[in-house]
Amino acid sequence: MKAEILAVGTELLMGQIVNTNAQYLSSKLPDVGISVYYHSVVGDNPERLRESLELALKRCDVVITTGGLGPTQDDLTKETISEVCGRRLVLHQESLDAIKAFFKKIGREMTHNNEKQAYMPENCTILKNNNGTAPGCIIEQGGKVIVMLPGPPSEMKPMFDDSVFPYFRERSSYAIESKFLRVFGIGESAMETKILDLIEGQTNPTIATYAKEGEVTIRVSARVEQGKDAEKLLGPVIEEIRKRTGDSLYSEEDRTLDQVAAELLSGHKLTLATAESCTGGLISQMLTNIPGISSVFMGGAVTYSNDAKEEYLGVRRDTLLQYGAVSRQTAAEMAAGVRSRLKTDIGVAVTGIAGPDGGTPDKPVGLVYIGLSSEKGTVTKELRLLGNRKRIRTITALHVFDMIRRHVSGLEIDTGDKE
Amino acid sequence: MKAEILAVGTELLMGQIVNTNAQYLSSKLPDVGISVYYHSVVGDNPERLRESLELALKRCDVVITTGGLGPTQDDLTKETISEVCGRRLVLHQESLDAIKAFFKKIGREMTHNNEKQAYMPENCTILKNNNGTAPGCIIEQGGKVIVMLPGPPSEMKPMFDDSVFPYFRERSSYAIESKFLRVFGIGESAMETKILDLIEGQTNPTIATYAKEGEVTIRVSARVEQGKDAEKLLGPVIEEIRKRTGDSLYSEEDRTLDQVAAELLSGHKLTLATAESCTGGLISQMLTNIPGISSVFMGGAVTYSNDAKEEYLGVRRDTLLQYGAVSRQTAAEMAAGVRSRLKTDIGVAVTGIAGPDGGTPDKPVGLVYIGLSSEKGTVTKELRLLGNRKRIRTITALHVFDMIRRHVSGLEIDTGDKE
Repeated sequence: MKAEILAVGTELLMGQIVNTNAQYLSSKLPDVGISVYYHSVVGDNPERLRESLELALKRCDVVITTGGLGPTQDDLTKETISEVCGRRLVLHQESLDAIKAFFKKIGREMTHNNEKQAYMPENCTILKNNNGTAPGCIIEQGGKVIVMLPGPPSEMKPMFDDSVFPYFRERSSYAIESKFLRVFGIGESAMETKILDLIEGQTNPTIATYAKEGEVTIRVSARVEQGKDAEKLLGPVIEEIRKRTGDSLYSEEDRTLDQVAAELLSGHKLTLATAESCTGGLISQMLTNIPGISSVFMGGAVTYSNDAKEEYLGVRRDTLLQYGAVSRQTAAEMAAGVRSRLKTDIGVAVTGIAGPDGGTPDKPVGLVYIGLSSEKGTVTKELRLLGNRKRIRTITALHVFDMIRRHVSGLEIDTGDKE
Repeated sequence: MKAEILAVGTELLMGQIVNTNAQYLSSKLPDVGISVYYHSVVGDNPERLRESLELALKRCDVVITTGGLGPTQDDLTKETISEVCGRRLVLHQESLDAIKAFFKKIGREMTHNNEKQAYMPENCTILKNNNGTAPGCIIEQGGKVIVMLPGPPSEMKPMFDDSVFPYFRERSSYAIESKFLRVFGIGESAMETKILDLIEGQTNPTIATYAKEGEVTIRVSARVEQGKDAEKLLGPVIEEIRKRTGDSLYSEEDRTLDQVAAELLSGHKLTLATAESCTGGLISQMLTNIPGISSVFMGGAVTYSNDAKEEYLGVRRDTLLQYGAVSRQTAAEMAAGVRSRLKTDIGVAVTGIAGPDGGTPDKPVGLVYIGLSSEKGTVTKELRLLGNRKRIRTITALHVFDMIRRHVSGLEIDTGDKE
């Protein structure tokens, strides 16, 4: 089945917001056998909306609209589609009650214009909105399916996941099951080369690689008849990818490297402290984004100045003078220092030159040292990274999490890494 | 003039990337008198691309395409548009030389298929690409204008800014000049109420408010004839908004609160240290994102555990036992402690409950205390914030930057703030 995603809203055409809804829906629809052929965006204009809708119905089997279900006079999606489909709007009491209950819950007065949101096209499937006031709906008309979803992603996504995805899955003769394997330490093109024969040789499962800053995700998707087990198709391919990626494969559950590191620490009941110079708190900030991290992460020091490195980490002045703040020696003392001060099992430290200024021929922008200290001693790693300040900091943080993962899992740690 | 932005690329329809290009172009085009009426996206399919292009040319005066200018067989935008416009593709030697030079610069071998990128439609305006290999171009055809831009935002944006924007500005009889006023501490609806009469009463300049987490930006845009001064129109309106926003207005140059705080500290030659509990390094991380911050920011402590608060900040055990880690007293001792340990002019501290767990009836999720210590003593502020962990942490960080701004500027600091 071919689909068009039609977003309605002048704020999109004014560039005030990005159409992330189209991306979200596009990433999900193939799993229920629907191929997205077009995205389109129109403003809050009934004439252009009508024309766009008619075009979409002509060229696709499924049309999913987002936006234009609000309470104001501008919100015209439901009205326009009902007119095109020759259906009346009728009061849906259950929706009206839900809207009233919603306003009660958030402690605000319901205004009269919110009642408009409870008028729905006759003979449609109503989609409950648990995160806002506008219900969505599905209309089946002349062999075509029209789905109307609210615009705010916080309402659109759960409505799609809870109601629309199951609707299409029931009607699809097959299902797609995907596994996401995440790899750190192998670049995207190198990764693709490693598994190119698999990518090209396979039609089911299909294999695709996606690159994110410093990481590669491999998606393996199997298409099976409804109710059949995808494992038989996925298993052997995943096993083969495991062999080729080795210990660079850090997650088979689409988890991030910081989550994996935190879970390993927590699973082994190990505590952690951080000492950050060029990352400036990025590592501790990522860790503390994870709820419940307080059993693992005790704290850390952000030591931008040399004085702070001495005061908080006990880095020796001699070391700073002899080797410089950006050196293996300083990284090692920082890691050992924070571990000893905060009495944790592991201490990690980062010192480097994130740029744009501060580089020298000897110590260029992108030179970073990482230290990891534990009861087994201290290991350090040299990175030579490319890119701007933000990228250097982000990739450094990922290397730290990978080093923690390798340490806790007893894997080999490389001491130097050049991009 | 009416415009359509037509993105070409199967990766958009697969949901692998978001169409941020459409947003970027949409936000810029009104400034040269062009109204965006449609966004559309098609895959790398010549037939559907041709149909979409023909439709766009029928309903708009300007069509801007993004994507499909790459070296591979999939990249068909230039070929398809040339065919629709009845133009041949001819070798553009200057572009070929530029592509060769680009490959030399990055130290890679130029492959044969890259030559395809130097073949351009005859009689077009070539747009240089300083950040990649694909040149763009502008075709004028039958009173319509077609602009072809590369897909990667890092190439598309500078090409648009450097070449396309000036092209349209030259042809526009008027210009739009905008000022962005940024406000912290007044919610969007309260802000809109404060200036509703201005918003409704004005047609030139126009006034619009945009909300971001915790902040509001007011855009004031004046439309003037080319070469005329917009200041006469903008000045009185901005003066009126200044009066109504008072000292909540923190920037008239579209700068962020962390930048403003950092610039104030730097301008007054003041140094800063941070002590973070629930924000976990977010504040230091935001500060150290700013290049050159090392003259201002000396370092800080991320003290998640009580032990870390004692070890790094000298918070008294008695204080922690009597008032708890989340209290005005602890925040005050944290701020004073980090300032004294790192010998800075100012110390700021945060302690709170970011959730989702850890809340009690007495100290619910969202309760946060901020401390600011200086030679004048220590002030504290209580926040009661709503929302999830990420939001609570982000809004807290903004309050810290606002407190620094107010302290350095000698403005009043409120000691309690409830959402």
